[in-house]
Order: sequence, then C-alpha cells, then structure tokens
Amino acid sequence: MKMKVFRRETFNAAHRLYNPNWTDEQNEATFGKCNNPNWHGHNYVIIAEVEGEINPDTGYVVDMKILKKIMQEEVCEIFDHKNLNLDVREMQNIIPTAENICVVAWNLIRNKLDTKLNLKIRLYETERNFVEYDGNV
Amino acid sequence: MKMKVFRRETFNAAHRLYNPNWTDEQNEATFGKCNNPNWHGHNYVIIAEVEGEINPDTGYVVDMKILKKIMQEEVCEIFDHKNLNLDVREMQNIIPTAENICVVAWNLIRNKLDTKLNLKIRLYETERNFVEYDGNV
Amino acid sequence: MKMKVFRRETFNAAHRLYNPNWTDEQNEATFGKCNNPNWHGHNYVIIAEVEGEINPDTGYVVDMKILKKIMQEEVCEIFDHKNLNLDVREMQNIIPTAENICVVAWNLIRNKLDTKLNLKIRLYETERNFVEYDGNV
Amino acid sequence: MKMKVFRRETFNAAHRLYNPNWTDEQNEATFGKCNNPNWHGHNYVIIAEVEGEINPDTGYVVDMKILKKIMQEEVCEIFDHKNLNLDVREMQNIIPTAENICVVAWNLIRNKLDTKLNLKIRLYETERNFVEYDGNV
Amino acid sequence: MKMKVFRRETFNAAHRLYNPNWTDEQNEATFGKCNNPNWHGHNYVIIAEVEGEINPDTGYVVDMKILKKIMQEEVCEIFDHKNLNLDVREMQNIIPTAENICVVAWNLIRNKLDTKLNLKIRLYETERNFVEYDGNV
Amino acid sequence: MKMKVFRRETFNAAHRLYNPNWTDEQNEATFGKCNNPNWHGHNYVIIAEVEGEINPDTGYVVDMKILKKIMQEEVCEIFDHKNLNLDVREMQNIIPTAENICVVAWNLIRNKLDTKLNLKIRLYETERNFVEYDGNV
Repeated sequence: MKMKVFRRETFNAAHRLYNPNWTDEQNEATFGKCNNPNWHGHNYVIIAEVEGEINPDTGYVVDMKILKKIMQEEVCEIFDHKNLNLDVREMQNIIPTAENICVVAWNLIRNKLDTKLNLKIRLYETERNFVEYDGNV
Repeated sequence: MKMKVFRRETFNAAHRLYNPNWTDEQNEATFGKCNNPNWHGHNYVIIAEVEGEINPDTGYVVDMKILKKIMQEEVCEIFDHKNLNLDVREMQNIIPTAENICVVAWNLIRNKLDTKLNLKIRLYETERNFVEYDGNV
Repeated sequence: MKMKVFRRETFNAAHRLYNPNWTDEQNEATFGKCNNPNWHGHNYVIIAEVEGEINPDTGYVVDMKILKKIMQEEVCEIFDHKNLNLDVREMQNIIPTAENICVVAWNLIRNKLDTKLNLKIRLYETERNFVEYDGNV
Repeated sequence: MKMKVFRRETFNAAHRLYNPNWTDEQNEATFGKCNNPNWHGHNYVIIAEVEGEINPDTGYVVDMKILKKIMQEEVCEIFDHKNLNLDVREMQNIIPTAENICVVAWNLIRNKLDTKLNLKIRLYETERNFVEYDGNV
Repeated sequence: MKMKVFRRETFNAAHRLYNPNWTDEQNEATFGKCNNPNWHGHNYVIIAEVEGEINPDTGYVVDMKILKKIMQEEVCEIFDHKNLNLDVREMQNIIPTAENICVVAWNLIRNKLDTKLNLKIRLYETERNFVEYDGNV
Repeated sequence: MKMKVFRRETFNAAHRLYNPNWTDEQNEATFGKCNNPNWHGHNYVIIAEVEGEINPDTGYVVDMKILKKIMQEEVCEIFDHKNLNLDVREMQNIIPTAENICVVAWNLIRNKLDTKLNLKIRLYETERNFVEYDGNV
C-alpha cells in the first residue's frame, strides 16, 4: 500500500531579496520592503512529504526518527539562526525567495533519502505565504 | 522548475442555504439549521494555490503582492461583511454552500490570473468543514 | 489547591452593529462595514475559564462534561446558526458587539454554575479580534 | 464540476508499537520509546477528503452531516478513548502506526461512502507527524 | 521592569481516570470513557509562565535555554511516552486528571527554578480542555 | 462593565542578541546562535490587551479600527521588514530580546492610547517562546 508521511520542522533566519544584476531602483520596484539592505527575517516552517510503501514488518513508510534527522542535519542546522544570503553556502548566488529556499531544501533532503521514496517539500515563510516543490520540471 | 505558491486571505459573511424550487419542508430537511431564514454567518478562509515556473530573475512564481491584490479585489472586497445571498451579484441564483462559493471565487481569480499559471482554491467555512476546486470538470 | 480549568466551544452566527438611537450616518461612521443592513457573520469561539478547588475524590475542579453541557445548552444552542439581532431573546435591545455577546454569555453560564466557582469568558470574533469578561464592574 | 470536500474529526487513544515476531531487542531498536509496554497515547486528528460532483439541487458534493456521521460511527466511536492494540477489533494483529491506523480508517469509511465518491484520509498523530492514504496500491 | 516569559513544550502519554476507593460503578459514573481499564492517551501541551525582572545585561527574565532544559528534564522526559498511572513515580496514588498532572508539573519545575521567579503552568489535554495552576491555595 | 479587548497584528524582522559591553566569548556563551553577527529573524506576533469600560452607545471598549491603526502605525510599520538593531530608532542601545521589544512596543502604544484604558502587550517570537508586559515595575 502506498502512503504519504509528513514531518514538520522549523528554522528561523534572516534574508534579503535582491538581484545583483539589477539597479537599486529595479530591486526596490520588484522586492519592495523585502529588499531592505539591513535584512529582515522569518520563522520558517518546513514540511517534508514522503511517499512510499508501508513496510509490513514495521508499519512504517519511513522511520520518522530518520526523516527528522535528515531534515535537521541537511536543512535546519544549516539554515537556522543564519543569514540566508551570507551564511549558507547552498544558497550562494540564489535569491532567497521562499520558492528558491524550498528547491534548495528539496535537493538537500532528496540527496539523503532512499531513492524508492518520493519527496515533496512545503515551506511556510509566514502564516499567509507558503510554497511547495516536488522536483518536477 | 515548477512550483506551487499559496496565499491565505479571509472574509466574514452571512448566508442562508435555501433552494427556491423546494418547499420549506424540503429545505428544512436538507439544510437544517443552515436554512435559518434570518441568516447565520462564518469567518471564511480562502487559500489560492498557484502553480507555475520560477522566474529566474525574481525567484518568484508570482509576486505575492499581485496575488494578494487579485484575491482582495476580486473576492474579499466583494464578499467581506456581506450577505452572500442578497449583496453579491456574482452569487445571484446560486446556493451559497462552501462548494459554490469556492467555484465562484475560483472563476473570479482565474479571470485575472496569467493564463500560464494553474489555479486551485481552498475555502474553509469552519475549522472542521472545507472544500477545494481546481477548475476540472 | 486552587486551579483554573478551561473549555472551548464554537458557534456561528449573523449580526449587524447598529444603534437604533442614531442616524444612519452616525451608524455608518462608527460601525462601518459592520453596519451592513443585510447582515454579515462570524465563527465565534467561546472559552469558559472556571476557577475553584480540586475535588480530592475526582481530581476535577469541575467535570468537563458538565461545563460543556452548560456552555452548549446556555450559549451555543441559543446562538448557533442564528441572527444575534433578530433570533436571540437574550440579545434583544443590545448591540451585538463581541463585548456585549461576551457579557450575555457570561451571565447565561454564571446562572448555571456552582456559586463556589469563579467564571471568566473569552470570546473570539475573528482570529485577530477577541474579548474577555469576568463579571467585575 | 468536480470538487473536494474535507471534514475534520478527532479521537484520543493509547497504543504501543510492537512486532510480536521480533525479540524485545529488535522492537526496542526499531520503535524506541513508542515500544513502552505500558502504552502511551495521542490526540489523533482525522481529515476525510471526499471528491465528487456538486449536486446542483443542494450545492453539496456530500452532505457534511452525513460525512460527519460516517466518520464518527465508523472511526471515532470505535477508536476514541480506547487502546488501539487491545480494544479495537479492526486493529487486531496490525501494528498501530499512524500509517496502519490511517489505512484501517480509510477502509471503514470507504465501506459506507457512495461509490461515486473518491476518498483520501489524512491522520495527524502529533502536530509534527502525519500521514495520508487514498486507497492506491 | 517586571515581565512574564512563556515556554511551550509537549509530551504524549497514556492514562486512566480511576479512584481506587470507589466501586467500578462509581468510577464509570464519574469518569465515563476516561475510565477505560485498557487506558487511552493524549498529546499534552505544557506552557510555563515565568514572571520576574528583566536582567539589564542580557535583556532576559530567564534564559529560555535554561527554562526549556528544566521543563524537558523535570517533566517531558519523565512523562513522555509513558503511562501516567503506572510509569511515573511522581504521579503515584494521584488520579491523573489534567488538574493533578498540572500541579505535579508545577511542583517539579518550581523545585528547579530561581526563587525570585514566579511560576504558573498551563496544561492542554486536548484542543478544547485545558487547566492552569500557579501554586496558590 | 469592565472588559478586556485583544487585537492581534504581525511583523517580520531581523535581529541579533549582543551586549556591546561584553567580549565575544561572553556574548557567545550567553546568546549562543542568537548572537550570529550576520543576523537571523522572526515572524513576530503582537497582541494588545486593552482593559476599560464598555461604552453603552457603541458596545465597544475601544473601536478595533482605532486600536489596529495605533498598533500598525506605532509598531508594525516601524518594525516590519526591518533590522531591529540597525533600523529602528526606538530600539537603539537596547538588546532586542523579546522582553525588550515587548517593553518598547508597550511604551509606543501606551503613548497613543486613551489614559482611561489599561494596556498589556503579549509578543510571540516563535510558536514556543513568548513574553508579556503590562507596565508594572
């Protein structure tokens, strides 16, 4: 039987939306207050959705302790209490919109997840704005 | 890369569930307390889910400021603090169930959204009852 | 030992804010969109906070089944799916602001509650607006 | 028009994760603190997602009163305030992981639901761990 | 300046409400389904409210890392994934109602907290039932 | 009749916990990851609790539109999408802990609020850490 299992984790980070190929005016016009050169920040919520078969011996699709460990080591410990523009190697040269953070998080978790499992990542930037990515192009 | 982005807005409205082609007894039997002729109301939560490609220049699928503006102008300002049966032209001759409100909201937002973007609308009538529509028939 | 116990219930209702002693202009200026003559509505959340001694035989301050029954019979069944201006005898000649609904609910529950117990009522009109009343003047 | 409607219910239960074909050491290594022989428990949240056509006479995909009744009679009354390993016939010889509880709940609700309607069940074991099943294999 | 700071933690446990001095009939009449001899369980949420002066050197009333550690070591590690009737020495001979669990948790945390700080504990047993204790008699 | 009314607003900001009178080692030992020199950030939730008499003409303790305006103009517009250490004049030379932000917000709102009304401010830094201040010393 195919199931989906979900695990929710959190991290808090600073960022700034800014395209280095643009003038300040273009950045201001597009990103508005998110372009503040002194940064702002968010409490991010990340939910990993993993699809696979139930293992009849355990009743698990994936052991949540393992999924939690992957999410924490690959994403939360790298992003938490960091500046996403300055401190996170995996975000270098990437505008840290919720969309782009979600894609980077998907890739980091995908690399550590059993290839038999499908992965989708949902990322909440605020209560009202959130995004989702499943690796499809 | 294909992503989904979500935006959450709210509106508060009165309504009554009532089929004018039916007798009072039929309406009462089907709609129960939702059929109260003096109306009742809800705090509605609407979430727009928009699917599209990430723009590499902005890192956005769609600018949330634009999506918010469409949702507010097309749905919230028209439905908020209104009687859905009496005050809203777009709901005329439509039983204002969560299902039908969701379809109307989908059409109103769809009309203003870039045709390259897919749209799904989720509408919460209460914490425990909600619906979703994506335009498929 | 003195404790507080809390019970959460919900009801959905229509209302209109309107002072019959005022002109339409005064009502519009004060109550704005809440003054819509065709009504609007809310999902109300009511939380009763009851303070008293723990009964050593039961470990209860008050049996939650009894508190739930009082809240449902005295408030929810009377207010739920009703028009607070037209349908609720206890709200007659009272402007149905969150404040006034809260005071009426406090009185209705207070009448049925053991006099040894203190009572406070919190009422949420929306996620962002709520009120609290404990009978003090 | 095809829609999805969702209904949220809750139940509270005790359980223990344990594979009777394994040694205590294997169970401890796999299930950790969830293997406590004296049980532990959770507040489960179950959300039924039902897909179907809007009935033009009612504006409903399915009457929420009926969906609520099916969920309560088939799942909540059987699981609520019970020990999932000992008290629930439908869970006999099944390791009561969130995954397996979700599959059992799906089957119980599916049996009572109109065959024209599609069903998906989401089950929250905690705020951070949840699962979803739609009958696909 | 006097402030209150709050920290939220969680634990999941099984319990049964049962007074050993009573007959089965009395227990059943008082505790109903909470009296199930095979146990049931909950996801408990505990919020510690600590009142004190802001330390001008740190801007803290109390370092949240220390408050978190006290809550986890004194309460969560002792109660989590346990049977509150059978496994927890601190609950021996105490009916594990939310009220009594809250008092025990208050005492355990109070013992480790700086005497200059005031303490109040709020404990959620479900979304709808919760209690609060501040040591007053 | 004396009531409390509450209004919830939000803002997102970057900050760093750092005492300029201390060595880097002292700052690191006390503030840990909150001391990151490149900043981090949060989605803050602020709830103003205002106590006063119900105006019998309006049924209001305070018009929520006015309370909302004060909170937005005095706090949200000044703090939102800002660096609390660098961008906010009102936070100059103040370590931006939740405690200190709460006191500053209390003072800013207190200055604009009718002196007949009492004020308490609750500030959430995360889901798990929050503080409250009412002006008492």
